[in-house]
Amino acid sequence: MKASIICVGTELVTGKTTDSNSNYLAKELQQYGIYTYQKFVVEDHLDHLITLLEIASNASDYVILTGGLGPTLDDLTREAVAAYTKCPLELNEAVKDKIIKTLERIHKACPVNNFRQAYFPKGSIILANPHGTAPGFITDYQNTKIIALPGPPKEMIPMFQERVLPYLNSRRGVAFVRRELEFFGIGESALEEKLMDLIVDQKNPVMATYAAEGRVSLVITAMVQGEAQGEALLLPVVREVKKRVGEYIYSETGEELEQVVQALLTEGQMTLSIAESCTGGQLSARITSLAGISTVFHSGYVTYSNQAKEDTLAVPREVLNTHGAVSSQTAMAMLRGLKERTKAHCCLSVTGIAGPGGATPEKPVGLVYVGVNVLDDFQVFELRLRGNRQRIQNLTVLHSLNYLRKALLKI
Amino acid sequence: MKASIICVGTELVTGKTTDSNSNYLAKELQQYGIYTYQKFVVEDHLDHLITLLEIASNASDYVILTGGLGPTLDDLTREAVAAYTKCPLELNEAVKDKIIKTLERIHKACPVNNFRQAYFPKGSIILANPHGTAPGFITDYQNTKIIALPGPPKEMIPMFQERVLPYLNSRRGVAFVRRELEFFGIGESALEEKLMDLIVDQKNPVMATYAAEGRVSLVITAMVQGEAQGEALLLPVVREVKKRVGEYIYSETGEELEQVVQALLTEGQMTLSIAESCTGGQLSARITSLAGISTVFHSGYVTYSNQAKEDTLAVPREVLNTHGAVSSQTAMAMLRGLKERTKAHCCLSVTGIAGPGGATPEKPVGLVYVGVNVLDDFQVFELRLRGNRQRIQNLTVLHSLNYLRKALLKI
Repeated sequence: MKASIICVGTELVTGKTTDSNSNYLAKELQQYGIYTYQKFVVEDHLDHLITLLEIASNASDYVILTGGLGPTLDDLTREAVAAYTKCPLELNEAVKDKIIKTLERIHKACPVNNFRQAYFPKGSIILANPHGTAPGFITDYQNTKIIALPGPPKEMIPMFQERVLPYLNSRRGVAFVRRELEFFGIGESALEEKLMDLIVDQKNPVMATYAAEGRVSLVITAMVQGEAQGEALLLPVVREVKKRVGEYIYSETGEELEQVVQALLTEGQMTLSIAESCTGGQLSARITSLAGISTVFHSGYVTYSNQAKEDTLAVPREVLNTHGAVSSQTAMAMLRGLKERTKAHCCLSVTGIAGPGGATPEKPVGLVYVGVNVLDDFQVFELRLRGNRQRIQNLTVLHSLNYLRKALLKI
Repeated sequence: MKASIICVGTELVTGKTTDSNSNYLAKELQQYGIYTYQKFVVEDHLDHLITLLEIASNASDYVILTGGLGPTLDDLTREAVAAYTKCPLELNEAVKDKIIKTLERIHKACPVNNFRQAYFPKGSIILANPHGTAPGFITDYQNTKIIALPGPPKEMIPMFQERVLPYLNSRRGVAFVRRELEFFGIGESALEEKLMDLIVDQKNPVMATYAAEGRVSLVITAMVQGEAQGEALLLPVVREVKKRVGEYIYSETGEELEQVVQALLTEGQMTLSIAESCTGGQLSARITSLAGISTVFHSGYVTYSNQAKEDTLAVPREVLNTHGAVSSQTAMAMLRGLKERTKAHCCLSVTGIAGPGGATPEKPVGLVYVGVNVLDDFQVFELRLRGNRQRIQNLTVLHSLNYLRKALLKI
């Protein structure tokens, strides 16, 4: 099933107010098997709304409108739906009475305008609004259900939860089941090339890749009649994907790398200490952004200068002088010093050149050494990264987490 | 002049990623006299994109697209613009060479897919992308300019500033001069209220506020014939703004708080050490994200556990037992221990409850103590923040930087 969302309101278009309704609705609908594939953010303009209603409903099972249900003349959602569906507006006496009573209760005179909120396209289901004066409504048009909700989230969300969801569930026939695989160490293009035939040929399930810096997600979506059928449809595809590119998958449930690491540490009842140079605290910050991390996180040290490496981690000055701060030897000495100092079960050390300064012909910007310790195992990995400072720091954090993840999986 | 904005990307439609581009563009365009009146957020689907391009350009002088310029087969913005404008895609050899060279430089084979980024609708102006591989382009169609930009904000924003704005200005024979004031400690609404008359009445220069978590920017833009005229127009407005809300301004050149702090430390030839508990390394990470920070950054410690506070910072166990880890006494002991240990000119210590766990009736989530030392001056500030873990950590970092900035300004 497909949905389009139309958010009505000038302040949303100009950027003065950020629309949060559409993301909320898209995520909610997805859980109930309805897939949002377009969102429009528009002003209160009658002809324009009618045009967009037509575009939206031509390709959607559900069109959800938010906003434009207020009492003033520039609120035109009711009029637009009535005109588009050819269901003229009719006064609902019960709603009119309720509006008068509500305004009486708060000792306000009822401007005639407010009665506009008691009109609905003929034949609509009316959705009561316990949190405001504007009811929503659902209007049938051909094969599409047009659902109009108020704009303020504190009115829209309860109405969606209490009125719209029960309505949707009562109509449910098919649903969508999705699986999200997270990849690290392979680019979006490379992943797509390896899965090209699956991506192009598959109709059900379908798959799509999403990329963020250093991370690629593959979302596989199946249209199903029931839970069991979903698994039956997804399983062979997931198995084929894993056969081809399984080595790069770090999560099958949409988690971040740090969440996977946290789960592995928690499961093994192990603690982690971190010593960072070129990432300057970002690795510790990434890990400690997670709630409940205090049970596994021991200590973090940002040993940016040579002095700090000597003082805090007992890196021998000889190692620093002979091999330099950015060397596998220093990464290893940091790792061993950190282990000695904190006695954590796992340790990570990072030293590198994030740039833009600090490079030499032998040691370019992007050269990074990552020390990884789990129990008695000590290793150092070399990375050669490209990009600006921010990217190199971010990729170093991700690689470090991934090295630790792999080391934890081995024990 | 009217604009429509089309944001392309499945992750934007599904709510996985929040679209920030359209608000940014709408606010920017408004300052240059271009009024956005509709925004579409859609998936990469060819026919659908063409339909929306038609709707958008029928009623707009400018159609701005973001996203869908990547190398993969589901990136269809190029194809959609070509089909709609009837300007077939043509290979641009120079761009192709640049893509090959970029990928060679990072020792990657060039997947054939990547060449898709070197095709543009015939006759388009190509917009170079120094921050990524996908160039943007501007295509003429009837009376509308269709402007396609990359989706990632860190590529889109520089391209808009450096290429699109000069293009827009050159078409109209005017130039714009702008000044960006950065505020901390005042909300966007409060700022707007204090400047309401200026915001509403001014035609030239115009001003707009932008809010990000804990930070508010005020951008003042003047339309001018020459540089000198710009200053003459801007100066009285800037002076009036400073008179009203100058105490909250930390930069008049669009800098981040950490950049201001870095400049003050560098200017005073002073070093900084940081000890963090609830921010888990984020404060060190924010400071060390800056290039050239090694001249001022001494050491960072992530002393998450009580044990780490004792071992690393010599916080007396008695203080921890009597007052708790989250207390002004502990913040002060951390600050003094850090000073003693590192002998840096300036020290910051942070301890607090970021949540969601760890709260008690007396010490709620969001209670944070920040210790600030500059030379011989030691102070502790108490914060009571609201929001989720991520927000509390971020606001703590910003407040800490701002306290340090103020302390540095006093000496």
